[in-house]
Amino acid sequence: MERKYNIVSIIRKKRESQSLSKEEIRFLIDSYTADEIPDYQISSFLMAAFLNGLNDEESAALTESMLHSGIIVDLSHIPGKKVDKHSTGGVGDKLSLILAPIVASAGVSVPMISGRGLGHTGGTLDKLESIPGFIVDVNLDRYKEILERQNLVLVGQTEEIAPADKRLYALRDVTATVESIPLIAGSIMSKKLAEGIDALVLDVKYGSGAFMKTPDEAQKLAEALVGIGEQFGKETIAFLTNMQQPLGYKIGNWLEVHECIDALKGDGPEDIMELSHLLSGAMIYLGGKAITIEEGIKISRQQVANGQAYQKWVDIVKEQGGDTNTIENPNKYPKAAYEFEIKAPADGYISKLDAFEIGMASVELGAGRKTKEEAIDPQAGIVLRKKVGDKISKGETILTAYTNKPTTIESASELLFGSVTISDHKPEKEKLVTHIVDSKGTRFFELNAVELR
Amino acid sequence: MERKYNIVSIIRKKRESQSLSKEEIRFLIDSYTADEIPDYQISSFLMAAFLNGLNDEESAALTESMLHSGIIVDLSHIPGKKVDKHSTGGVGDKLSLILAPIVASAGVSVPMISGRGLGHTGGTLDKLESIPGFIVDVNLDRYKEILERQNLVLVGQTEEIAPADKRLYALRDVTATVESIPLIAGSIMSKKLAEGIDALVLDVKYGSGAFMKTPDEAQKLAEALVGIGEQFGKETIAFLTNMQQPLGYKIGNWLEVHECIDALKGDGPEDIMELSHLLSGAMIYLGGKAITIEEGIKISRQQVANGQAYQKWVDIVKEQGGDTNTIENPNKYPKAAYEFEIKAPADGYISKLDAFEIGMASVELGAGRKTKEEAIDPQAGIVLRKKVGDKISKGETILTAYTNKPTTIESASELLFGSVTISDHKPEKEKLVTHIVDSKGTRFFELNAVELR
Repeated sequence: MERKYNIVSIIRKKRESQSLSKEEIRFLIDSYTADEIPDYQISSFLMAAFLNGLNDEESAALTESMLHSGIIVDLSHIPGKKVDKHSTGGVGDKLSLILAPIVASAGVSVPMISGRGLGHTGGTLDKLESIPGFIVDVNLDRYKEILERQNLVLVGQTEEIAPADKRLYALRDVTATVESIPLIAGSIMSKKLAEGIDALVLDVKYGSGAFMKTPDEAQKLAEALVGIGEQFGKETIAFLTNMQQPLGYKIGNWLEVHECIDALKGDGPEDIMELSHLLSGAMIYLGGKAITIEEGIKISRQQVANGQAYQKWVDIVKEQGGDTNTIENPNKYPKAAYEFEIKAPADGYISKLDAFEIGMASVELGAGRKTKEEAIDPQAGIVLRKKVGDKISKGETILTAYTNKPTTIESASELLFGSVTISDHKPEKEKLVTHIVDSKGTRFFELNAVELR
Repeated sequence: MERKYNIVSIIRKKRESQSLSKEEIRFLIDSYTADEIPDYQISSFLMAAFLNGLNDEESAALTESMLHSGIIVDLSHIPGKKVDKHSTGGVGDKLSLILAPIVASAGVSVPMISGRGLGHTGGTLDKLESIPGFIVDVNLDRYKEILERQNLVLVGQTEEIAPADKRLYALRDVTATVESIPLIAGSIMSKKLAEGIDALVLDVKYGSGAFMKTPDEAQKLAEALVGIGEQFGKETIAFLTNMQQPLGYKIGNWLEVHECIDALKGDGPEDIMELSHLLSGAMIYLGGKAITIEEGIKISRQQVANGQAYQKWVDIVKEQGGDTNTIENPNKYPKAAYEFEIKAPADGYISKLDAFEIGMASVELGAGRKTKEEAIDPQAGIVLRKKVGDKISKGETILTAYTNKPTTIESASELLFGSVTISDHKPEKEKLVTHIVDSKGTRFFELNAVELR
């Protein structure tokens, strides 16, 4: 390979806050993927990029290089628009399992490639695998086949999708260069663009249980993601959503699947239903099956009400090898060997349920991994009995925790007890969705204005 | 080894501009030296340190950790103070070869460990090796033996001296993290402190031919170096010196040795003599053989005048295996096969001789290395016939270049021609030494005030 560029000069330019050309970034990523540049040069570049930033063009070039490091799935033979949704991750965020069947049942193709749990947040693949038999690792032909048959596919990233991102991500993880907006945006978008989608809905979370702790950071990330989507000609809509307390009442892999089954039957918690219908509505709109997001939301509610969303769920579980008896009879799923409760130490109102601490407790109980090699316990997790704003009396149960590892009870209890704040006054209700970000910019989003109820 | 600290947390702290504890820096360097931390984590740390800086305590801790990665030579059995000099590197900077014999002849022990040429600047070891037979690689016992016998030793860094610095330096070179003041200061001082010295004189250069391009950068580096020296209880004096044009008239390994022989006989160019006597004077003062720098300078001039400095030079060449006939008859040294001249294109005054471009041309001609593996040609180099401020007529020779590689003539000519600026008016004379930096701070330095002439 001809060495047109000098890697040390490229690192130096970024170190001096100069802009890199598209060709320089392509050289960097291509050479790294081809094993022509050692990890230690890329990690020095990543730290310089972390501290000095990447502009929109650099960010797009990075995404494109990572995208082209692998195959881009061609779904053009499947009629209609292909739409996916991506969440930046939260605690109790199980929405993919709800909205994918809703949207697919409404006639929009949903080619969904998901990840595993990371840190305190759960992962869609881990949840799906709590269903006995469910297969998330399929090859490309099978991926297309499932999508054609079901209008839906729920799988994990194959080796062929954006391999450069996989390597870069692993390196960032051990070199303290994860929390960079352009690097995160490039990583997310290179994988999503490789799926063969036409449009994308993004759920960008902020707060204790999210990776972005403030609305401001989330907005910057959302704008970066939408910017890249637009640069690649994919219609992209992002919502900024609140992740201070967990979403819904259940945290943990099977527990969350159970809550999804309820939601798909129209019987989910209010926050879950609200956000699912909004994101589904946006996907249906982007998929060309509704002329506004508002109409998309109506269709989403209709697909749940008429049972077609639930039926699609049963169909996809069956298609991907899952045991449909389990999902038809969720109460028969075996319970964890140990359970314990956290009770209110005083009368009052729940004013805080810290999503990060609850997420960490769920990992402790076995619902997540502390090292990449650890196995997930599908039964482990937490069921909230109260949410922020609820009135509670001294001694009343706030939450129940489930585990198969009794040695974790003490540390998880401590985390869980610390996650709860009780106050005298009823706290003001925080909005679940605050902003919408799309090609037209960033603006406040009013749920009521789109007739969610 | 017990893992008390987490390397990713240490990198993250520096990324967030937080201060690291002495223990954290020690953990980092010790683990790296023990091969327990991969290069890609250290390079990420180095870039964070480059961009966010290291404070005085961090810098001292880094130096100490690198120092203790190897042996610290114990010279306490040799009576009197041991004093060394270090230059940050320039073009035509051959002063070590002049002042080491002067100072040693004045009764101060000079344990001098030098480096090789780097980029556009020459290296003391390469110059010494242009003397047939001269051995610069000796073991520790021989190092001490030479010093005891001659009051002087001129050798290269052994594997036992600051091995962590050697590894870090090699990594910095390929990760664009070289030009950081605390990293440079730590690298220099860890090696110097390991020599077993009691005091140190520093020649910190600025300008085109130096690594520090501005007086401001040079001052910061000088203050960092003096700060570290003082923290380790070593009296340290730095001078800020001008490196816009080359020092003296000769650039290239043997050519520079030849100019040193002249200087040691009292017949060197004015700038070389001025700076040599100043630095020697400071070393003699720090070595306790003069009560002021001014008196040290007088002694230095005396040692040249009475022939003892030159005799010490002959003695050390002989001691280290060098052919004394060569230095006694420098004009008999074989000339390079090719020589060419750069002539003035117009009448006027030399207003600029760009030291960087002249240094790069000398590398091109064979006097330096483009890759670490390249051999040095001792005959290659440049002899200036004029210096900045000299009057010149059209067609008169500005400089003569020597090489054994005729293929380099075109590119070297181009560089050399570009290095010269001729103007109508005589340029104002720039001061050679501008500031002195020591434990009392930084202040202007007046050569006349110390009666150099």
